[in-house]
Amino acid sequence: MKRVLVTGASGFIGRQVLAPLLASGYEVHAVARRCAPSAGIAWHCADLLEPGSARRVLDAVRPSHLLHLAWYAEHGKFWSAAENYAWVGATLELLRAFADAGGRRAVAAGTCAEYDVRYGYCDESITPTAPANDYGVCKNAMRALFDAYCARRGVSGAWGRLFHLYGPHEHPARLVASVARSLLQDEDAACSHGRQLRDFLHVADSAAALVALLDSDVTGAVNIGSGQAVSIGEVARRLALLAGRPQRLQLGARPAPAGEPPVLIAATRRLHEEVGWRPRHGLDAGLQLTLDWWRNELKSPA
Amino acid sequence: MKRVLVTGASGFIGRQVLAPLLASGYEVHAVARRCAPSAGIAWHCADLLEPGSARRVLDAVRPSHLLHLAWYAEHGKFWSAAENYAWVGATLELLRAFADAGGRRAVAAGTCAEYDVRYGYCDESITPTAPANDYGVCKNAMRALFDAYCARRGVSGAWGRLFHLYGPHEHPARLVASVARSLLQDEDAACSHGRQLRDFLHVADSAAALVALLDSDVTGAVNIGSGQAVSIGEVARRLALLAGRPQRLQLGARPAPAGEPPVLIAATRRLHEEVGWRPRHGLDAGLQLTLDWWRNELKSPA
Repeated sequence: MKRVLVTGASGFIGRQVLAPLLASGYEVHAVARRCAPSAGIAWHCADLLEPGSARRVLDAVRPSHLLHLAWYAEHGKFWSAAENYAWVGATLELLRAFADAGGRRAVAAGTCAEYDVRYGYCDESITPTAPANDYGVCKNAMRALFDAYCARRGVSGAWGRLFHLYGPHEHPARLVASVARSLLQDEDAACSHGRQLRDFLHVADSAAALVALLDSDVTGAVNIGSGQAVSIGEVARRLALLAGRPQRLQLGARPAPAGEPPVLIAATRRLHEEVGWRPRHGLDAGLQLTLDWWRNELKSPA
Repeated sequence: MKRVLVTGASGFIGRQVLAPLLASGYEVHAVARRCAPSAGIAWHCADLLEPGSARRVLDAVRPSHLLHLAWYAEHGKFWSAAENYAWVGATLELLRAFADAGGRRAVAAGTCAEYDVRYGYCDESITPTAPANDYGVCKNAMRALFDAYCARRGVSGAWGRLFHLYGPHEHPARLVASVARSLLQDEDAACSHGRQLRDFLHVADSAAALVALLDSDVTGAVNIGSGQAVSIGEVARRLALLAGRPQRLQLGARPAPAGEPPVLIAATRRLHEEVGWRPRHGLDAGLQLTLDWWRNELKSPA
């Protein structure tokens, strides 16, 4: 019997993993500070930053699998927040409680910010890690601890490094969400020059990839990306075309953030060949779903 | 006023830092699970692995300086102990409480095991890190977290990477202690081939170096070593000569541990030039002090 505990289950990615976990035959237990009861899921309300809370949940659930997505993720703050360090401690507590409770397979969310992003094209086996902010430092340190701790406790562990996500429930100030909202409201969408190359993946695909990774026996760091490089400007142009308002797009109207890497894209050989997973949504389809979702949100009473 | 909190103050190195700290003008507060009251030192008995205990001590002491030596160090176990991971969490708690209490300067104990020891000669600025055991993984992850956390909290932080230590109170099964004890008891001292090159430093010198580092404004990783490469066989031969029992030394009588690096020595430019510190004890003098200490120990009633 496969019984999974999902942390951060009410978050941007967390809410998307529940359905594919059920579809893959897991008994699904979800933990979050703010429980969001849903059919077929056993919810456990807990703040994993509180000492002892991970152990209480793990002793009660005794899952065979762990999908650890919880972390501090406040938009505009998480890159340099002190909370990143607290999540290292909390994650170590969680892993210990998982192993003590007999857990066998764990997947946790990492980030492209672990890499030395000056390399641009990020390959798990050769690109050096050299994070440039607190979020990346803490995730990268946690990955090294995760790998070694899983190995010593006989837990099979994989670390899914997320690249650029978009989709429903994204913070409205983030790129795709903010461009989509402006276009749908027939306002100008001001962007930077837009030549930065990125790997964009719809959040439902990212979630499905993490579930496929959990269901595999692949260990270590695995990039979670589409494997398709696309410029930020191209993403914005496609959104504008899909929204039928190409004239509202103002590329170059904003300065590009200082220090932003020109290229940050994922090597996806491990994900495609070892895990055997490929995205379901192409970029146009993913952006269309996202526009549809925001159109509905903007219609709802506030 | 300089007020320092020393963690691990009753340990192998900790007990040696108290006198030089007093001599350097610090008001000295010591924390340890087992308090060892001594003149001029304010002791605080606490187990830093207990949630909340670091905060209680830091709020009471409010030190300007922190010298963090506490860690799991059980001989024969610490390389692969689960406790290493718990000490990462406890160290993060300690640092947070130190910064919250207004602390300004922190030095913590790192290890040569953070390096990819296949490189042999370890230079802080160029030798890659790639720890090969739980102790090294946890110390190396902690160093990255320490550097970034100190920077974001405005704490000046340095990380003293210790190489090979010897001296009073060393575990009797470790190299220098075990050879010294065998020789003093007129028993055969069986060693491996002894050609491995190492950097040996008397623990009183290591402690003095850490205090000098604390008193400096040097930040980041700094090797704590003598800068003198010596073979393990040469250390054993000198001990045997100093003890007057060269015939008791059996080099090659034991197999060398598998996977032991042939060379593991410290670049000491940062320590010598930036910190401006050099060892007080040469190897012969340090070994003589150690023999004298063991001779006295072996005479004492058990």
